[in-house]
This record gives sequence, C-alpha cells and structure tokens, in this order.
Amino acid sequence: MNETIITSKANPLIKEAVKLKQKKYRSLMGKFILDGYHLVNEALIKGLVERVFYVESCEIEGVEKYQVSAIVMESLSDVVQNQGIVAICKKPEKMEIGNKVLILDNVQDPGNIGTLIRSCAAFGFDTIIAENSVDFYNDKVIRSTQGALFKVNLISSEIMGFIDNHPDFDIYATDLKSQRYLDEMKITAKKIAIILGNEGSGVSQEILDKVNNSFKLKMSNMESLNVGVAGSIILYELSKRSL
Amino acid sequence: MNETIITSKANPLIKEAVKLKQKKYRSLMGKFILDGYHLVNEALIKGLVERVFYVESCEIEGVEKYQVSAIVMESLSDVVQNQGIVAICKKPEKMEIGNKVLILDNVQDPGNIGTLIRSCAAFGFDTIIAENSVDFYNDKVIRSTQGALFKVNLISSEIMGFIDNHPDFDIYATDLKSQRYLDEMKITAKKIAIILGNEGSGVSQEILDKVNNSFKLKMSNMESLNVGVAGSIILYELSKRSL
Repeated sequence: MNETIITSKANPLIKEAVKLKQKKYRSLMGKFILDGYHLVNEALIKGLVERVFYVESCEIEGVEKYQVSAIVMESLSDVVQNQGIVAICKKPEKMEIGNKVLILDNVQDPGNIGTLIRSCAAFGFDTIIAENSVDFYNDKVIRSTQGALFKVNLISSEIMGFIDNHPDFDIYATDLKSQRYLDEMKITAKKIAIILGNEGSGVSQEILDKVNNSFKLKMSNMESLNVGVAGSIILYELSKRSL
Repeated sequence: MNETIITSKANPLIKEAVKLKQKKYRSLMGKFILDGYHLVNEALIKGLVERVFYVESCEIEGVEKYQVSAIVMESLSDVVQNQGIVAICKKPEKMEIGNKVLILDNVQDPGNIGTLIRSCAAFGFDTIIAENSVDFYNDKVIRSTQGALFKVNLISSEIMGFIDNHPDFDIYATDLKSQRYLDEMKITAKKIAIILGNEGSGVSQEILDKVNNSFKLKMSNMESLNVGVAGSIILYELSKRSL
C-alpha cells in the first residue's frame, strides 16, 4: 500500500503518466492512459491495468494504487470535470486477424476513429488495421468509442503489407469516383476487408490501384458523407449479408 | 456603398449580429449568422443573405456590405482562423412537409443534428421536424452540415401536433427496447416519418406510447450507437427501399 498522497506534478510516476498523452511515448512504452470509472473497469476486466491514480478513494484490488491531489489529477485527466480516477494500462496483446477487417488509410479525426471502432463492435467487424491515422489510444478516440475500445482487435500496420500477405481476403476500397454501388456488390468470400480513407482526399491512389476493387454509397444531393458515418453504413450493410 | 471600415464592436450592426449567436435572438428575429465563403455563397444562391461583413474585400453584389476590422471579425466569427467573411441571413421560408420526414425528439448534440441534416440530404429525406433539440441554426450545427443546410426543409415544431395532424403518415419510432428490427419492417406507405430521440434517454415514453410502432437496429456486442450514426444507417436503409 502507498499511504502518501502524491501532491507534486514533478513526481516521477506522474511525469511518466503525463507523457502517455503523447503518441510517441505510448508507442515507445506500449502503454496508454485511461480516464474515468467505466473505462478503467473495462480495462481491469481485460487485465490491462498496471497502475491507478485516484483522488478520493479506490476499491480496486490487485494493481498499484496511488492517491493524488485534485491538482495532480487535473494534470493527468483530459476531462474538464474528471471523475478522480485514471489508470495506466498496457496495450492489449496482438491477436490474430479475424475474417472481417476494416482498414483505415490516413483517417485523421479522433471522433471518426472512435465512431468506427464502435460500429465495428456493433456490426461484427473484428479487426481494424490503421496506417498514418490517429492513434487508437488517443484520449479523444478512447472517449468516443463509448466502451468499444476493448471489443475490437486494433492493429497499427502497413496497408500494402496486409494486402500482399493476405491473398485469401477479398479487399474493397471506398472511392467516390467508383462506378459501382455497395448495393450491387456480390460478396462471396469468407474473409473480407474494407478500406476507408482520409476525410479530405479518400483512399490514396496507390492503394486504390493496388486493390483495383472499389465501390461507393448511392446518394443524391450530396457528394459525400463523413467517413465515420459512411463507414458505419457500410459495416451495417455488410453485417446483414451472410459472409 | 459603405466606405467606412467598422472598427468598433459597439457599432449597432455588429451588436445585432453578435446577438444572433444566441438561439433566442435567432428565433425572435428570424435570422441567423453564417461563417465562411462556401456557406455564404450557398445562402446567396438561395436568396437568404441580407448583409455581409468582410475584412479584406468582397465581390458579392446586391446585398448590404460592410468592411470591418480583423478584431471586429473575430467577434463575429466562431472559427479560430476565420475566412474574413460572415453573412446575416434570414431563415428560409417554411416549405410544405414532404413525403419522407425525420423527427428529432430532444437531440442535444450539434454534431449529431448536423450529421443528420447531411444524411437526410444524401438519402432523400426532405424534411426534418425537431422539438426540444439544438437549434438548426446553431453555428456548430451549420458547420457540421457541410453545406447540406439548405437542402432540407428544417422545421421546429411540436411532435405530438405533427402526429395528430398527419394520419396519412406511417410513423416509426426508434427504441432500444423494441422487439422488431429495421430489416423486418415492411414499409408500404408513401409517406413515412422516423423518430429519433435523445442521446441518453432515446425517444420519450409519451411519444413511444402515442406512435406505438417502434424498431431498432440489429447489432451485436454493443448496446447502442451514436444517434447521428444510427439515424444515418436508418436513412440509408430506407432510401434503398421503394417507397
């Protein structure tokens, strides 16, 4: 037990925790920081929590616990009215790639990534592979997943490498210039991957050329939808088909 | 022509414009404020612009134009790096209610309303009726519509009144407790309305009881989706069916 309350932001444990707000330290250390009871509990169930910082009290057992002052908590939490608890967690072990994969090419908005993680969990897509995109463990991504963070296998990896190494997958890229609509696609493969692209420029031409298998959503009156919304519609639609 | 540059935030025109950031003044005056070239141009095409404030130059003809200092523009614009142009617009004339209506009961997040306006435009829903929800002309709503603001008939009105006065509509409410999935719904009516509810509590029990016709999306692993995403999926799905 640690009986002393940490009141200084210069404490080495606090300094290490604050560093985890930056992607490069999350990558370097293989850890991330979680905010609030609900998410900390989900991480506990998954066995990912290494250390908890709390202000008032904490009934969690089996992990390092440190009581901190409200001011120190403010430096740890990104939430304006924080719940007085954050946890340092290790990133989940890499799992095998499943049969339904969502691929993100240069998706930059944390809310979009969070929405897509949530929709993957809802519609049976088991794996997300992202390249040049916002980090899955960014605090805004985590908040917008609404608890879906631990329900999907999240992998940062090269998209070209995935394509080369997975000839058993049927891979489809979204492209506003495509002549084919989602409704018209006949999907028979057991393993499929869908590629979504950047908010402004879509899937890169290099990847479109490589995949050579594109589609878009049928819509009137508008050129495009937000990638989180469009992606969620695609995931829903594919979840209805027997794969 | 107005040759003088307005440099004071105390100028009556500026004070009136700033007031339009508040819903109650927008309602009172039947006007709203628009930010940036793209949206101002769309409003011009629709004949809604009454007055333009600009910093550098402005080639728009046929409306009142006032040059303002950069500091005054900062008080008018809600965008951190503004484009140096805002317009005071009158709200569009009320149009007749169309055949495909989205109803919003107590939707509170501006981004969700914006997403739903955009998806209505994309998927052929011509009218949105909202009660107790964020104002359509809130600046965050406008920004997230991405230009769809003027493509949908936006009405603030009582939902119960709509239901009572429109027996020719088949009205469906979303409800996470419903036993029926969207896929199973047979829709034959020419006129349909879909009701979406509050981010936390869904459609109010009073309205659910009144409509007595509910459904939900089929999903695994997650209890719910963001209302903007769930609503967009529903609008897409219904756009595919011949109504």
